[in-house]
Amino acid sequence: MAAEDDQAVKVLGNKLSLYSFRVEWSLKLKGVDYEFIKEDLLNKSERLLHHNPVYKKIPVLIHNGKSIPESMIIVEYIDETWRHQPSLLPQDPYERAMARFWAKFVDEKCVPSIISVFCSVGEDQEKALKDAEETLKTLEKALKGKFFGGETMGFVDIAAAWLPYWIGVTDEILNLKLVDQESLPLLSVWFEEVVDVEIVKGCLPSRDELMAHLKSFRERSVAAKD
Amino acid sequence: MAAEDDQAVKVLGNKLSLYSFRVEWSLKLKGVDYEFIKEDLLNKSERLLHHNPVYKKIPVLIHNGKSIPESMIIVEYIDETWRHQPSLLPQDPYERAMARFWAKFVDEKCVPSIISVFCSVGEDQEKALKDAEETLKTLEKALKGKFFGGETMGFVDIAAAWLPYWIGVTDEILNLKLVDQESLPLLSVWFEEVVDVEIVKGCLPSRDELMAHLKSFRERSVAAKD
Repeated sequence: MAAEDDQAVKVLGNKLSLYSFRVEWSLKLKGVDYEFIKEDLLNKSERLLHHNPVYKKIPVLIHNGKSIPESMIIVEYIDETWRHQPSLLPQDPYERAMARFWAKFVDEKCVPSIISVFCSVGEDQEKALKDAEETLKTLEKALKGKFFGGETMGFVDIAAAWLPYWIGVTDEILNLKLVDQESLPLLSVWFEEVVDVEIVKGCLPSRDELMAHLKSFRERSVAAKD
Repeated sequence: MAAEDDQAVKVLGNKLSLYSFRVEWSLKLKGVDYEFIKEDLLNKSERLLHHNPVYKKIPVLIHNGKSIPESMIIVEYIDETWRHQPSLLPQDPYERAMARFWAKFVDEKCVPSIISVFCSVGEDQEKALKDAEETLKTLEKALKGKFFGGETMGFVDIAAAWLPYWIGVTDEILNLKLVDQESLPLLSVWFEEVVDVEIVKGCLPSRDELMAHLKSFRERSVAAKD
C-alpha cells in the first residue's frame, strides 16, 4: 500500500499561480494522472515546507516519494520520466538549447516586465509599458509556427501559455491593450491559439477569481511603494 | 572551406567572467578542441552583438555556424552534442532535476549574495555576510561526495567552481574569511579539491589580474550607491 502511494503523482500548486499550470499542462500533455493538492499562497503549509525546504514555493511535483521543485525543472523531469510522445523538448541539441533559452527569457524578462506594468502607476507605468512591449516583441521572434514548439505545444508554449489569460485580465483592470494585432501580429495569433487548446483552458482559474486575485495583488504592490 | 570553419567550436568569453569558465570547463571535460575569442567586457564587439542579440553577453558558444548563449544552457548543449563520457549531467531523471536545481541555486542565490557582500560596506555588509553564509550552508547540503557530481566533476561543480577562487580574492580585498572549515566543513574541502582539478586551474585568470578587476568593480559599485 505504501509503495503504491509512493508511485502516485502529486502536484502541490495553486490555480492562481502562473508557475503551477506548467506542471499540470505537461502532465496532461503526457497523459499522466495526478492528484492536485491546493496550497494556500499566503499561508504556507507544513507539507510545502517539507517538500520544498529551500524556496518554500509552489509548484512541487511529488513522484516515487521524491519532491521536485521549480516549474521548468519539473517540466524537464516529466519529459525525461515519461519518455513517450509528445516530447516537450525537441530532439535536436540546438533546438533544445533554444527552447531552454526562450523559456528562461519568459521567466527572466516577460514575468518581471508584466509585473512591472501591472504594479505601477503614471509615468512609471508608461515606461514599464514600453519595456514590456519591447520584451514581447523579442519573444515574438521565437515564434516559428502555430506554436513556439512548431505545430504542437512544446516547452516554450508551456512556459508562456499563462500570458494571454493573465494579460487579458490585467488589460481589463488597467484599461490597456498590451498585445494588439498591429504591433505583435504573430503573438496575437498565438494568444488566441494557445488559450483554445483544451488542456490549457481546462486548468485555468475562472476569470472572476483571477480578476479578484490580481486586483488585490496590484493594490498591495502599489500601496507598498507609497 | 566554409563548411570546415562552420564545424569549428568557438567560445566568445573573457577569463574575468565567472560564467565564461563554465563553457571552457565543459569542453575540456569532453575533450573538445575550441578556439577562445576574448571579448572586452566594457566595450562590446559587433561580433558579440551579432551572436547574442537578445542579451549581448558572454559566453556564447558557436558551433556548426549556430550561436548558443547562456552558460548553463551551453553546458547542457555540450553534454547533448558530445554524448561520450564523462556525462556532465547524471542519467537518472530525478538526479538530473536535482543537478539543475542546484545549478540554478548557484546563479539565483550564490552569485547575488556574494556580489552583495563584495559591493557593500558597514552594516549593509554585515547583513549581506550573514545572508551569504546561510546561502552557502544551503549549497553545502547538496554535496554528497568529493564533488557535487559524486566522485568526478559534474553539472553543479561546473556551475560553482568559480566560487573558491573568487571568494579567495574577495576575502583578501575585504579582509574576511567567508568560508571556514568550522562553519562549512564539507564546502571547505570541496573548495580545495575543485581548484586543484587540472582543467579548472588551467582556465583561471592570474590572481593579480582578478584582484585588479574585482577591486575596480567594488570601487565602481560602492561609489554608485553613494
